[in-house]
Amino acid sequence: MASMRALVWDGTEARVVERPEPQPTDDMAVVRVALAGVCNTDLELVKGYMRFRGTLGHEFVGTVVEGPPVWRGRRVVGEINFACGNCRYCIQGWRRHCPHRRVMGILGADGAFAELVAVPVGNLHAVPDGVADEAAVFTEPLAAAFEILAQIQVPSGSDALVLGDGKLGLLVAQVLDQAGMRVLVVGKHDNKLALLQDRGIETRTLRDWRRLPAPLVVEATGTAEAFALAVEVTQPRGTLVLKSTVAESRPVNLATLVVNEITLVGSRCGTFPPALDALAARRIDVQLLVSTEVPLARAADALRLAARPGVLKVLIRNDSAR
Amino acid sequence: MASMRALVWDGTEARVVERPEPQPTDDMAVVRVALAGVCNTDLELVKGYMRFRGTLGHEFVGTVVEGPPVWRGRRVVGEINFACGNCRYCIQGWRRHCPHRRVMGILGADGAFAELVAVPVGNLHAVPDGVADEAAVFTEPLAAAFEILAQIQVPSGSDALVLGDGKLGLLVAQVLDQAGMRVLVVGKHDNKLALLQDRGIETRTLRDWRRLPAPLVVEATGTAEAFALAVEVTQPRGTLVLKSTVAESRPVNLATLVVNEITLVGSRCGTFPPALDALAARRIDVQLLVSTEVPLARAADALRLAARPGVLKVLIRNDSAR
Repeated sequence: MASMRALVWDGTEARVVERPEPQPTDDMAVVRVALAGVCNTDLELVKGYMRFRGTLGHEFVGTVVEGPPVWRGRRVVGEINFACGNCRYCIQGWRRHCPHRRVMGILGADGAFAELVAVPVGNLHAVPDGVADEAAVFTEPLAAAFEILAQIQVPSGSDALVLGDGKLGLLVAQVLDQAGMRVLVVGKHDNKLALLQDRGIETRTLRDWRRLPAPLVVEATGTAEAFALAVEVTQPRGTLVLKSTVAESRPVNLATLVVNEITLVGSRCGTFPPALDALAARRIDVQLLVSTEVPLARAADALRLAARPGVLKVLIRNDSAR
Repeated sequence: MASMRALVWDGTEARVVERPEPQPTDDMAVVRVALAGVCNTDLELVKGYMRFRGTLGHEFVGTVVEGPPVWRGRRVVGEINFACGNCRYCIQGWRRHCPHRRVMGILGADGAFAELVAVPVGNLHAVPDGVADEAAVFTEPLAAAFEILAQIQVPSGSDALVLGDGKLGLLVAQVLDQAGMRVLVVGKHDNKLALLQDRGIETRTLRDWRRLPAPLVVEATGTAEAFALAVEVTQPRGTLVLKSTVAESRPVNLATLVVNEITLVGSRCGTFPPALDALAARRIDVQLLVSTEVPLARAADALRLAARPGVLKVLIRNDSAR
């Protein structure tokens, strides 16, 4: 069996190693990865989150090399939840919540920091011609940002506060801004906040911010310690959207949620079409998020780089000559 | 100035002491308390919750003795949030969330474990003739149970899981049952659960329960440690209503809320009319909740009794001869 290179997390170390190439099945296509993105979830996984072992990576764009003829040769992105298709959740349209699901590079399925990745055919989405690989690779995290609009009402003109100036925070801010909300982003990094100011979105550094409560708050810091602050700055009867998935547990007093009757909405992955539409229409600027690009051979460095303060998206390019 | 007896928490001890009688003002009526109820919040207050000092008690029924002529002599209950009436929240109809509010027996206002209590005239509700004092005294906690129906959709025939067989759990179970849901109550006390079985509501002891997740879960245990279990048994995309206000903080991992996209709804006080209507129509049985009655002179004993396992509502009767 032919082998390929992949960034594998073995529970101790993340290393680029040789792995057998994935094989297509009736349901699974094989995609040659062009570009993949490092997500904060990858950094959490190598701290122990989900107890994952295997090839990391769940944000990618590539070309189908094996699978149904209609897909072969197509440039694609892929939804990351591999559902069973037969359970109560799948039948109700909640495939992303299938209790039997595997999740690419996160739970029981190898990921996309590799030359090739296996993806259920039903999870594939063709990338519109006008969307470059460098934009399409953001489809998955952008879909996660759009998921907020699928979960809650966002009245046009009302205030939204986004906590966190990381990759997801910058995407969420743009999505809420596009939806007509008055967005304020609070973060720690002048250089990241400046990217939004250039697009007309208001920002404050944590230091300069007056902590006025807002009716909608999105916690996208990627840390556990911001939760208490997020609760504090959500108005009574307001909504707090939680986007951070972190391995760590923190002492939390839930009384404020009860006393202020706050609605807390856990928010994870979204469907891809709204994100692909926004990328095709260039309504969201994802290029501003790219910090650097690393070849697959140095993918372990990509994880280290992505963990540095001030760094935004690190892309991994599959540089194999095929 | 005339004095009266009141159960006062001084930060160290709760004792019945002599206190000056409250005086009426343009906005405040004075109510002679007939009967008051001990709430778990009272037990939390004497553990340090809210750092309250003063006369305890916020569940009561009594007769107006001073105030506008139209109210004098009327049997009343009273909403417990004393709002400023002029701020953004008050004007929007969220007087219960007024940031300047005082709360009877909880925050900056003396409570009803006393011969007399001062209540804003706008907070008074006349008690219908058919509702006995022993039922009317439950208006406040029953309104808190009805608050759930004001906050979320409860599709008739769908499953609801109530965690906790304390006073609030038994009220919430009846309210959701009346709203047409299929209710299962899980608790620790056979004697309390039996009260609901007699009304045709399904129950399980924690020991015998299979932990099947439900689309709606109400956490009404009054403890901090039940939160993790409540999250675990809420279905993905389901709703978890939080009713417990406790002083204690616990380590909580919020990742499950995000991964399962759970909506968590903090729920506190409700408006009184739905509760008074239900009591007048005898749709909710509150008598089954009464464990015992104690005279005001022994009100400190009432707190100790209410803290005992297996005890439900302890009522305090104002036995002064006036």
